Amino acid sequence: MNKIKVTVWNEYGESQKKPEVTAVYPQGLHEAIAGFLNKDPEIQAKTAVLADPEQGLSETLLDDTDVLIWWGHVYHDKVDDAIARRVVDRVQRGMGIVFLHSAHKSKPFMQLLGTSGRLCWREANEKTRIWTAASGHPIAVGIPEQFVIDHEEMYGEPFGIPEPLQTVFISWFQGGNVFRSGVTFKKEYGKVFYFQPGHETNPTYHHETVQKVIVNAVKWANPVVKVGPLTCPNVPPLEKL
Amino acid sequence: MNKIKVTVWNEYGESQKKPEVTAVYPQGLHEAIAGFLNKDPEIQAKTAVLADPEQGLSETLLDDTDVLIWWGHVYHDKVDDAIARRVVDRVQRGMGIVFLHSAHKSKPFMQLLGTSGRLCWREANEKTRIWTAASGHPIAVGIPEQFVIDHEEMYGEPFGIPEPLQTVFISWFQGGNVFRSGVTFKKEYGKVFYFQPGHETNPTYHHETVQKVIVNAVKWANPVVKVGPLTCPNVPPLEKL
Amino acid sequence: MNKIKVTVWNEYGESQKKPEVTAVYPQGLHEAIAGFLNKDPEIQAKTAVLADPEQGLSETLLDDTDVLIWWGHVYHDKVDDAIARRVVDRVQRGMGIVFLHSAHKSKPFMQLLGTSGRLCWREANEKTRIWTAASGHPIAVGIPEQFVIDHEEMYGEPFGIPEPLQTVFISWFQGGNVFRSGVTFKKEYGKVFYFQPGHETNPTYHHETVQKVIVNAVKWANPVVKVGPLTCPNVPPLEKL
Amino acid sequence: MNKIKVTVWNEYGESQKKPEVTAVYPQGLHEAIAGFLNKDPEIQAKTAVLADPEQGLSETLLDDTDVLIWWGHVYHDKVDDAIARRVVDRVQRGMGIVFLHSAHKSKPFMQLLGTSGRLCWREANEKTRIWTAASGHPIAVGIPEQFVIDHEEMYGEPFGIPEPLQTVFISWFQGGNVFRSGVTFKKEYGKVFYFQPGHETNPTYHHETVQKVIVNAVKWANPVVKVGPLTCPNVPPLEKL
Repeated sequence: MNKIKVTVWNEYGESQKKPEVTAVYPQGLHEAIAGFLNKDPEIQAKTAVLADPEQGLSETLLDDTDVLIWWGHVYHDKVDDAIARRVVDRVQRGMGIVFLHSAHKSKPFMQLLGTSGRLCWREANEKTRIWTAASGHPIAVGIPEQFVIDHEEMYGEPFGIPEPLQTVFISWFQGGNVFRSGVTFKKEYGKVFYFQPGHETNPTYHHETVQKVIVNAVKWANPVVKVGPLTCPNVPPLEKL
Repeated sequence: MNKIKVTVWNEYGESQKKPEVTAVYPQGLHEAIAGFLNKDPEIQAKTAVLADPEQGLSETLLDDTDVLIWWGHVYHDKVDDAIARRVVDRVQRGMGIVFLHSAHKSKPFMQLLGTSGRLCWREANEKTRIWTAASGHPIAVGIPEQFVIDHEEMYGEPFGIPEPLQTVFISWFQGGNVFRSGVTFKKEYGKVFYFQPGHETNPTYHHETVQKVIVNAVKWANPVVKVGPLTCPNVPPLEKL
Repeated sequence: MNKIKVTVWNEYGESQKKPEVTAVYPQGLHEAIAGFLNKDPEIQAKTAVLADPEQGLSETLLDDTDVLIWWGHVYHDKVDDAIARRVVDRVQRGMGIVFLHSAHKSKPFMQLLGTSGRLCWREANEKTRIWTAASGHPIAVGIPEQFVIDHEEMYGEPFGIPEPLQTVFISWFQGGNVFRSGVTFKKEYGKVFYFQPGHETNPTYHHETVQKVIVNAVKWANPVVKVGPLTCPNVPPLEKL
Repeated sequence: MNKIKVTVWNEYGESQKKPEVTAVYPQGLHEAIAGFLNKDPEIQAKTAVLADPEQGLSETLLDDTDVLIWWGHVYHDKVDDAIARRVVDRVQRGMGIVFLHSAHKSKPFMQLLGTSGRLCWREANEKTRIWTAASGHPIAVGIPEQFVIDHEEMYGEPFGIPEPLQTVFISWFQGGNVFRSGVTFKKEYGKVFYFQPGHETNPTYHHETVQKVIVNAVKWANPVVKVGPLTCPNVPPLEKL
C-alpha cells in the first residue's frame, strides 16, 4: 500500500521563535506534527514553511501531497494571492486539507469556505473540553466522548462558517464559551477539516488525543482520486435534438 | 393578514400536577406558552393535552393548525402510534412543528428525524448559556449573541440527530457539557425546530428571551403552503418515448 | 483483513416468481446481487427473504451483518412493525444500509428519513442516464461521468427526501423527468444510501456499472464502529456546580 | 412596509450589444429584469453595469442594496479583485445575492462558494424542463411541479458546487443532461441563490415562470438583518477562570 503523503505547512515566522514558543516546540510546531504523523505506518509526512522558495508551496511539492496541513496566524497576509489560489485549486482537484487553529483567517480557508473567518477569542490558558458530536465519524474513531486540554486559547461562537457537512467536535470553554471545533466540508473533489486546538505557546500538539484526531483527519481527507485542472467543457448532445 | 394558528400540545399528566410544577406553571406550561404567544399580534394560539379526546390531536384540530408545539416527557409511550403517525403526516404535508425540551424522545420526533433521541442529561439546576451559532437566522432575530438561564436541566452531546439544516443555538452548561440546543430540519413540505430549554420545574417559559425564540420559531415554521395527502402518482411521459 | 459482511434482503414474494421476473433473475434478484458482491475479495454476502423465520431479519443475523441491502416493493406492509424498528435500531447503532429501487416506501426507509417516500413513477421501459453529481465521492469511484441503462422504470422528482448529506447521482429519463437517484444520509452511527435503478423485470442488476455502484456503496457504508443499544444516560457534572 | 431594494448588476459589454441580443433585450437584460421586479409592490429595483463608476458597485450603492442580482459572462476577469471582495464582504454581512446563469464563473460566486465554477455546457437552443425538487420552499411558491423553457443553453452536471443548503430546482435537458439549476447557500449573515436559466440570446427573462422564480428569490434573500464589518473580537471570560 502506498503511504499517504502529507505536507505540514507552517508560517513559522519570528513569532514562533520567541522563547515561550521554542520552549514547547524547539524545532517548530510543524516538525512536532510531522513527527507524530510519521509514527503512523500509513503516513509519510514532510514539512514546509513560508520562508521556503515559492513560500513552501511549489507545484512540484503539491504534486507530491495528498493531504496538506496548514498552520498560520500572524503572517496570513504574507501568503501571495497566487499561492493561496494554487492551494485552493489543488483542494478543488482532490488534495485534502486540514486547517489548524488560527488558520481560520488564512487566505485558503476564507476562499474555500467563503467566510470572513469570524469568531471571538481569548488568551487565558483556560480549560477546554472537546465533545464528540458526530459519533461514528472516521475522524472520531478511538476518540473518547469528551477529552480535556488543560490550557488553550479560547475560540468562540459565532463562528462564520457555512453549515458544515458534519460537525464532528464541539468545545466547551471554562470561561463560558462554546465552539464548533471540528468541522468537515467538501469542495469539488477535495475534503476539508478544520480543528481548533493548537495555540503555539501551549503543548497541544504533544497531547495524545489531539494527535489521534489529526492522524484520523489525514486518513479521512486522503483523496480517493486527484484530477487535473478543472474546466468547463463544451459538450455535444447525447440525445437527438 | 391571517394570524398563524398555533396549537400548544402538552402531555400534562400527573407528573405536571405536583406542587413543584404547579408552583411555576399553575395552569400547566402549555397555558403559559399559549399565553405569551397570544401577545404577538401575528399569532393565535390554543392548547391541547393528552387527556383530550383523540389525545388532543384530532384531524379537525390539525386542519386548523399551522404550527404545532410539542411538550412531552413522562408519557411518550401513551401517545398512540396512529396519532404519532398522524402528526408526522401533517408535518410532511406542511404543518410546522416545534419540539420543546424532552420532546427529543417523543414518537413524532424520533420518526421525523430517524433518531433514537439519544443524549445525556442531569437535573442539577445548573447555569446554561445559549449561544447563537447561526447569525442572521430568522429564529435568532433579536436574540443576543448569548443569554443565560440560571437554572436548567442539562442535556448534552452526543445528541443523536442527523446533521441539521442549520444549527441555530449551541448551549454551554456549567457542569462541563455542550449541546446543539436549537436545530432546524425540513421534512417534505414541513419545517421542524427543536429547542432544548424548558424543564417543568424551572420557570424557563417565563424567561423573556426564551419566549422570543419560541415566537420567532413559530413565525419561521409557519408554512408557505399546506397540501393534501402525499401520494406516488403514476405519470405519463412528457417527451416522446 | 476481515471481509465486510453483507446481507441482501429481498421480499421475494409471488410478484417475483412470475415468468417476466424469473426470466431475468431465475434465483431471485437477491441472489444475483449477492453473486456479484461475492466476486469482490473484500465482501462476503449472504441472502435473506421475507418468508424466512423472523422475516429473515433475526437479531442473530443482524449481529452478523455490517451492511444490509434492502429490496422491497409489493409487500412493504407485510414487514412487521417490530422488525422494521429492529432494522432502524441497528442502523442507528452503526449497521450500514443500502436501499434499492422501490425500497423508498419500505418501513425502515420511511422511518429513518422521516419521509412519506413520495415520488412519481412510470413503467415504460425507457432509457435513463445516470449522472455523477458528487465527483470524487467514494461511491462514484470508477463510475463514469454518466452511464446509460437502456430500459428502466422511471422514478421522478419531487422526491420527498430530506436534503441529502451528499447527492451522488442524478438521473435523466427519456420521458422528461429527473431524479436524485443516488443519495447519502447518516443516522447516528449508521450510513444510509438510496440507489434508484433496479426494476424487477429489467436486467439492471446484471449491468456492470450498476454492480460497481453497489459494491462501492457497500464499502462506503461499512461501519467504522458498531455499538450496543443507545441510551440516554444520567451523568454527573464534570465541573464544579 | 419598506420595499426590498434590489440592484440588478450586468456586465453589459460589447457582447450584449450585438443584434441577436438587442433583438431580445433592447435596453439590456438588466433593464428587463429590473422591469419585471418593479411590478412587484414589495420590490424596488435599480440597475448597474460594469462601465459605471466603481464598476457599478460603489459602497454607497451597496449600502442601499438589500439584494444584488448578478449577471456576467464574457467579462468576469474585468471585475476588479477589490470590487469582488467588496461584494463578498457585503454578502457575509447580510446582503442577499442572486447569481444568474453564467455567473457561476464570476469572482464573487467562486469566492463565496469556494468552487472553480465547473460545469459542462452546450449552445444548441434545446428544450429544458425545470423540476421543483424542494416542495414548499419559498422560492418555489406558485411555481408548478415542472415548467418548460423551449430554447436555452444547456448547463450540465457535474456542477462543482458544495452540497447546497437546499436543492430547489433540477433541470432536464433534451440533449441528455441534468443540472442542479436552483440551489441555495448561506454565508454568515447572507443568503445566496444560483439560478441557471438566462442565456442572453434567448427570451428567458421574458418567461413568466422564470420571472416568478426571481421575484421569489429576491424575497427569500432579503436579509432579516444587515451588519457592519465582521471582526474577531478579543472577549473577556463570562465565567470565573
